[in-house]
This record gives sequence, structure tokens and C-alpha cells, in this order.
Amino acid sequence: MSDETVTAAFLVIGNEILSGRTKDKNLGFLAEKLTETGIRLSEVRVVRDVEGEIVAAVRALSEAYTYVFTSGGIGPTHDDITCASIAAAFNKPVIRNSEAMRRMAAHYETIGREFNEARKKMAETPEGATLIDNVVSIAPGFIIGNVHVMAGVPSVFQAMVLELLPILKHGTKMKSRSVSSNIGEGTVAAALGAIQDRFSDVEIGSYPYYRAGSFGTTLVARGTDEAVLEDVAEAIRQMIREFGGEPFEARPEDSGEP
Amino acid sequence: MSDETVTAAFLVIGNEILSGRTKDKNLGFLAEKLTETGIRLSEVRVVRDVEGEIVAAVRALSEAYTYVFTSGGIGPTHDDITCASIAAAFNKPVIRNSEAMRRMAAHYETIGREFNEARKKMAETPEGATLIDNVVSIAPGFIIGNVHVMAGVPSVFQAMVLELLPILKHGTKMKSRSVSSNIGEGTVAAALGAIQDRFSDVEIGSYPYYRAGSFGTTLVARGTDEAVLEDVAEAIRQMIREFGGEPFEARPEDSGEP
Repeated sequence: MSDETVTAAFLVIGNEILSGRTKDKNLGFLAEKLTETGIRLSEVRVVRDVEGEIVAAVRALSEAYTYVFTSGGIGPTHDDITCASIAAAFNKPVIRNSEAMRRMAAHYETIGREFNEARKKMAETPEGATLIDNVVSIAPGFIIGNVHVMAGVPSVFQAMVLELLPILKHGTKMKSRSVSSNIGEGTVAAALGAIQDRFSDVEIGSYPYYRAGSFGTTLVARGTDEAVLEDVAEAIRQMIREFGGEPFEARPEDSGEP
Repeated sequence: MSDETVTAAFLVIGNEILSGRTKDKNLGFLAEKLTETGIRLSEVRVVRDVEGEIVAAVRALSEAYTYVFTSGGIGPTHDDITCASIAAAFNKPVIRNSEAMRRMAAHYETIGREFNEARKKMAETPEGATLIDNVVSIAPGFIIGNVHVMAGVPSVFQAMVLELLPILKHGTKMKSRSVSSNIGEGTVAAALGAIQDRFSDVEIGSYPYYRAGSFGTTLVARGTDEAVLEDVAEAIRQMIREFGGEPFEARPEDSGEP
């Protein structure tokens, strides 16, 4: 089983997320795509545009997980220090990547803009890196070791993630069953704990929801074996009925809170 | 100046964020409120519902920053292990907090539900903790050391943050000026770097945006001195005009892409 467990961390780089100016939209997208691929996103960090902090986070996460994905800080301006920081984390020099230079020179010629020094900065990678294609705005991301460096702009980040998914090692997919009801989690907690104890290979989560005029609980069972998950879901439905509730399948909008 | 710098970290606890099932809504809210209060949110981590990982993150963040805020894992069910984990991080036993018991017993009596063992779990805190009021659903958060433990449900999290803001040490507020234009960041990068070099007390960020039919760059200067910020904004506007662009004040919707 251990050779089928593929783990990942996500490192968001950028003062603008920490100040609240920009609302991160990349975590939700990456989390969903990795889950679909059987890769278990196990930790996320958001750090400032400070080289020492980026280096420390990259080293810690790179050692702990199969894959690291980063977003942000690969543009042409002075505040874009991700490439230099990742290179420092791997003790590699920053070089101008010749394939990136070729793609970007062609692009700027096509759109009739100068391929100036600032834009050439976007063709830099740590020595030994391979490129991640960018179908949206050409300037590529890159991979070094197990670290995958991508743009922060959501449309570009998403395009890069979609480029990566086919080349990543896919793990055993976690499947899930969700059962909701209008019974509060404080009511079912003890009985639910007993179900969790019976099915130790399945991870059962309890998520209260509040919506206009109603509240309740969505119970989510996650695991790798469909048959066992169905047994757990049936045990949960039975439990809800015993408390006088009516189980229903969670609808997408139930995920709103929390 | 160093006694006016108040820093913070945010620790999100929960498998549901990492699996993508739940989209975090708390980071953006906390980041904005802390920024308004002059507290600099400097790092965020999201970890799984695993005691060892929560303990390690709490200890690292608690040591590095003035304040730590956490969300998630304080409900009544078996998967809510935040209280036990925070207590372990501080080497304290978990106790039933008498004031929390009093409030919750009164609440469940009022709404005519049993104050059962599972619900009593929500009255637990590490020994020596003080309570954070919960005007939404009564079950309180708590403070131990510099760590502020709150619910993950956004409406409850937000209510608890609003309770905390008046009692936190307020730092020197960062102020900002935003100037947008339809000039790409690759065009202005060198000139912008020169402005950053002239004003080393100000942090200038460059954020490309893409909207239906248009793209451009929002340049944001952040610092503590209004007069200096206005000088920086004027230098940026002048620079944009020199490149043939028309500067305009960033509107809220410009923040969409980062």
C-alpha cells in the first residue's frame, strides 16, 4: 500500500494573499484535481515574498512529500523572487533556459512587443530544471527535483496544473460517500464515533452546515474500497433514521459551510 | 519601530480543505481584518486532522509570531481533535471549562436539546485557557498562550474574529495606494524597479490582471507613511504616462486576479 500513497504539498508565495488584497483561488482547484488523481494533498503553506522564508518552506515540504507545487512570484518585476529562491533552496545557479528564451522570443515577435530584459527574466530557471508549458501566456513554469513552480494568476496556474496531471505519478484514488440530514452533529456524535471505530480503514468527517432556514450535518466517508464505503454509508443512513432523521445525498451546495 | 510590529500566523486545521471538498473562506476575511488592525499576517499553514502535525505547526508558529489564529476541529465529533492537539502542544491537560459548561448548559436548556457528552466535549479547553465568545452558536473558542482557537464554520469564525480584534495589540497600520493601467508589467518592470530602489521603506507589488477584453497591471505601494506613499503613487503615475498609458485608480474588482 505504501508504494501507492502519493502525497503533495502546496506552497503559495505572495504578500498579496497575506494582506488580503488577493483572495487565493488556486488551492481549491489544485486540491480537487489532486484528489481526482489519487494524490493526497497533505499540507499547504502561504509565505511572504522573502527569500529565506521561501527557501525554508521549499526545503521542508520537498523533503516531507512526494510532490511540491508552488504558485506566484514568477513574473518580470522586482518583487518576483520565486525562481531565485527555489534555485537557492536547491543550491543551483539561475540560468536563462534556452527553450524558454526561444518560445518567448517567438511570442513577443508575434505580438509585436519588445522582448526586453524584464521579460527575459521570465525565461530564467534554476540550472537543470525542465519546463511546464503555459498555453495561456507562454512564459513557462518549471520543475526542479520534486518541486513544480507555477504562476499565481489563476487562469495560468490552472493551465499549468492541467499540463502536469498526466505526467504525475497517480496514487490510489480516495473515493467518498456523503450522507446529509437535518440532525445536528452533537446528536449523532457518539453513534458516529462507534461507526468510525468499526471501519478503521475509512475516514469519516462530520461537517455542520447552515443555510437559509435550515441547518444540519453532512457526514463524509472517504476510503479506497467502494464496497466498504457503501457499508459505511448504509450504517450512517441507519443511524440517522434511528435518531428520527431522513438521510439524503449531499448536494454540491452543502459544501458551502465549512 | 520593532515594538510596533505585530505579526500573526493562521493555521487552518482540516482534511476537508486539503481534499478540496470545502473551499476555505476564512483566510481572506482574517487577512483583511488583521491588515486593517495593523497586524501583519506573515504565514499560513493548512494541516490535516492529525495530532502530531497540528502540534508541530502550533509550536513552530507560536514561537515565530506575535499571534497564532486557528480554524477548525472544535466540534463534538470524533474527528474534532484540535483542543486535544493544542493542549498537547502546550503540555497541558484538557479540562471541562466551567464557564463554557455554564453557557452551553443554559443554551441547550433554552433550545430544548440534551446537553449530552458529545456536546460537553465542546466545553473543553486546555487548562488555563480563556474563552472566545461565540454569539452565533454559543460553543466558545479559546485562547492559550498566544494561540487563538476558533471554529471553521465561516459565520462562527468571523464572529469570533470580531470578538478578538478589540483585545489584540494593534500595530502600525500598513496603508496602500493602488495605481492601474493597461501597460503590461513586462514593459514597466525596469522603471518600476528603479522606483522601488528610490523608496526602500515602501513595498511595491505588481499584479497583472486579465478581464473580459482587457488586461493590464495594478501596482500597489504599501507602507506606513501617507506622504511617502503619495510620492510613490505619483512617481508610478508619471512612469505610466511616459510609457504612453493612462493611470487609473484600482477598482475593487481589479483584485480578482492576483
